[in-house]
Amino acid sequence: MTGPLATVELIRRKRDGGRLTDADITALVEAYTADLVPDYQMAAFLMAVYFNGLDSAELASLTSAMIASGERLDLSGVSRPTVDKHSTGGVGDKVSLVLAPLLASVGAAVPQLSGRGLGHTGGTLDKLESVPGFKSDLGPSEMVKILDDVGCVICAAGPGLAPADGRLYQLRDVTGTVESIPLIASSIMSKKIAEGTSSLVLDVKVGSGAFMPDVGSARRLAETMVELGAEHDVKTTAFLTRMDEPLGRAVGNAVEVSESVATLSGEGPDDLIHLTVALGTEMARLAGLASEGDNGVGRDLRAALGDGRARARFRAMLEAQGGDPDAPLPVAANRASVAAERSGFVRRLDARAVGVAAWRLGAGRGRKEDPVSAAAGVLCHRKPGEAVEEGEPVLELLADEAGLLARAVETLAGAIDIGPEPPECPPVVIEVVRR
Amino acid sequence: MTGPLATVELIRRKRDGGRLTDADITALVEAYTADLVPDYQMAAFLMAVYFNGLDSAELASLTSAMIASGERLDLSGVSRPTVDKHSTGGVGDKVSLVLAPLLASVGAAVPQLSGRGLGHTGGTLDKLESVPGFKSDLGPSEMVKILDDVGCVICAAGPGLAPADGRLYQLRDVTGTVESIPLIASSIMSKKIAEGTSSLVLDVKVGSGAFMPDVGSARRLAETMVELGAEHDVKTTAFLTRMDEPLGRAVGNAVEVSESVATLSGEGPDDLIHLTVALGTEMARLAGLASEGDNGVGRDLRAALGDGRARARFRAMLEAQGGDPDAPLPVAANRASVAAERSGFVRRLDARAVGVAAWRLGAGRGRKEDPVSAAAGVLCHRKPGEAVEEGEPVLELLADEAGLLARAVETLAGAIDIGPEPPECPPVVIEVVRR
Repeated sequence: MTGPLATVELIRRKRDGGRLTDADITALVEAYTADLVPDYQMAAFLMAVYFNGLDSAELASLTSAMIASGERLDLSGVSRPTVDKHSTGGVGDKVSLVLAPLLASVGAAVPQLSGRGLGHTGGTLDKLESVPGFKSDLGPSEMVKILDDVGCVICAAGPGLAPADGRLYQLRDVTGTVESIPLIASSIMSKKIAEGTSSLVLDVKVGSGAFMPDVGSARRLAETMVELGAEHDVKTTAFLTRMDEPLGRAVGNAVEVSESVATLSGEGPDDLIHLTVALGTEMARLAGLASEGDNGVGRDLRAALGDGRARARFRAMLEAQGGDPDAPLPVAANRASVAAERSGFVRRLDARAVGVAAWRLGAGRGRKEDPVSAAAGVLCHRKPGEAVEEGEPVLELLADEAGLLARAVETLAGAIDIGPEPPECPPVVIEVVRR
Repeated sequence: MTGPLATVELIRRKRDGGRLTDADITALVEAYTADLVPDYQMAAFLMAVYFNGLDSAELASLTSAMIASGERLDLSGVSRPTVDKHSTGGVGDKVSLVLAPLLASVGAAVPQLSGRGLGHTGGTLDKLESVPGFKSDLGPSEMVKILDDVGCVICAAGPGLAPADGRLYQLRDVTGTVESIPLIASSIMSKKIAEGTSSLVLDVKVGSGAFMPDVGSARRLAETMVELGAEHDVKTTAFLTRMDEPLGRAVGNAVEVSESVATLSGEGPDDLIHLTVALGTEMARLAGLASEGDNGVGRDLRAALGDGRARARFRAMLEAQGGDPDAPLPVAANRASVAAERSGFVRRLDARAVGVAAWRLGAGRGRKEDPVSAAAGVLCHRKPGEAVEEGEPVLELLADEAGLLARAVETLAGAIDIGPEPPECPPVVIEVVRR
């Protein structure tokens, strides 16, 4: 039995395709967290992992070491079964805002630790912070109390949870080492496992507006995360879902809250309701609220959207977190339209282009210390499959400053296809990965 | 025409197998030298280069950018033709100590900028610094004056020559990115081109005691460096030479100076003389002191070793650099022998094991700020091909502290093979790479 390798030996071993032991990886993460391994060595290690990957034992060691780098929330005092959802990020993806109160309304507890947006996909906290007074930063005991009282809480992951992951993610972002399946999987799962949830549903987005461009990579990521969850006794299911067009009609912050409130009142767009109910049904199953073949759960979730139960939980959560559910949301001072160039059916509305446009309008940030605009964003007046007449608006752009509109319009060149026939619209759920 | 890519985009492009422009690479090296690109981004970039390489245009850009990061010595005022030699490093490789004065004695000027050792191969400056008073750190004007007066100078490359290479090398050393042919080639050649020599002979070592384990990699490195030399108008020839056993009989610092002095007096070991004359003949040819087929040069070099001309230049060089050629060299206080386990012929004497033993005895350093012992080292009383009786010493270990002997002896387990028949001893020069 020998001790762990020196850092440079460990980098070289991974570089040369060798295996690292649990002791090697644990020592590396501990030393990095304690500032004993410099960023430049970790950056070289991460790039070697980018090229040579991690096998399942190495991945389990890395994930465990990141969890062990901080505290692990104890949700055992929560009276309801805990279940969470995580999305890899998409354009117009406000599912968490609907799903957390919806599941709370049928008896689950949803401890939704979320992030802020960086790049063309928005962040759940940025969206909720457009509600006047809403507070994302809660201490662990405050979070657990709201979770127990309301049944859901959507807040920032505190710095105490998997801090090694936080530091590694920042480093990956500036060293070209983000797009690695084992690094993505361990980053997501270390946070979710440290959060203390008993079960977890993952929404792995695939398509032009997503991080994963193809089904094959998305499936590998999904399988990797489901396996990691099982190893840490978190019941985990992953959905592969389409992200070629924005989800719903609103992309931004306040506009997504408005669309979420409408959905919680039974008036949301079909694609958003469909995906929310699909994910929610699996969450209810994992939480033990429904048996495998229980079609009644889906009906009950749809009912809770229509009869005010879900909306009431959302209001209660906003209030518990300092928000005023009756305060008017910020409205953009400047608007522009992108009109249909011909009559016909919208055949394609590129999610990435719409996401980048919303980002340029101010809804997203370029650097993590930048603020975001609550009111900025894009509204999709027409979605793929819908008819439009030449000159009618397909998109409406919203910004605080008029000067931001022109560059956002540029981004949308080529983003809309209109043809004489309606396109085939494949279902939003591509496949489900269970262990 | 667009500007260079942002650093993270540049890392990603190299990671994904793309090409970088001259503007990209120049901007990266300039920004790194100016502390505008952090070590962690450069480390990730270097690891991506380790995996994906550099094409010839990228390599030329990197080399030029490293040269441009500092000053370039002007040797145009030196009255004799300039020619230098560089070795990739081997065990017992004291060729520079003999070759520089030897070439000076036949009319060339040898501006030998050398390094200190790190790891199991020694450094030329460490060896010379065992001569009392010898000074390795010279300013550019002092160096040029000695070169012009004596015909040779062996000193440290000042911090002004290719400083980007110095910083990159330090970073590579701790990030597992040393063993990359384009990075090795650009590092060596940027220093040598900045040094201002008109021609250059490279000794690329191959074998157990060398950096390059196989002929194929060594040949690629040699070809890459010869090409880079040609692009920068430095006439360059590379030799691939064997480094499976120590060169000569002495490995260390003072003991290598003693063996060099013996060689400069016509009493050196055959392998050292053979290699020195082979490299020297090519240096004389590149310097215009001999035509291609001139066998007389080799004879003249051997004569200069026997008649005192080369030794006189060595003494003059030591004196010009503050050294006392008549002072006794340090002698080790503690010794141990490794005896032959049976009678027969030495069939193998592993260069790496002997190098590591010398390093553990104190002749080398583990970190670049460590001192080295002048007296420590290993003497090879028997070399491959020589007969030995059971119990006779094959190796003699020298150390300042007795406590260092035991671990060095351990290193030598399995390093010596003795058999009933003498082995085949292949020639030291494997092949010569010219453009």
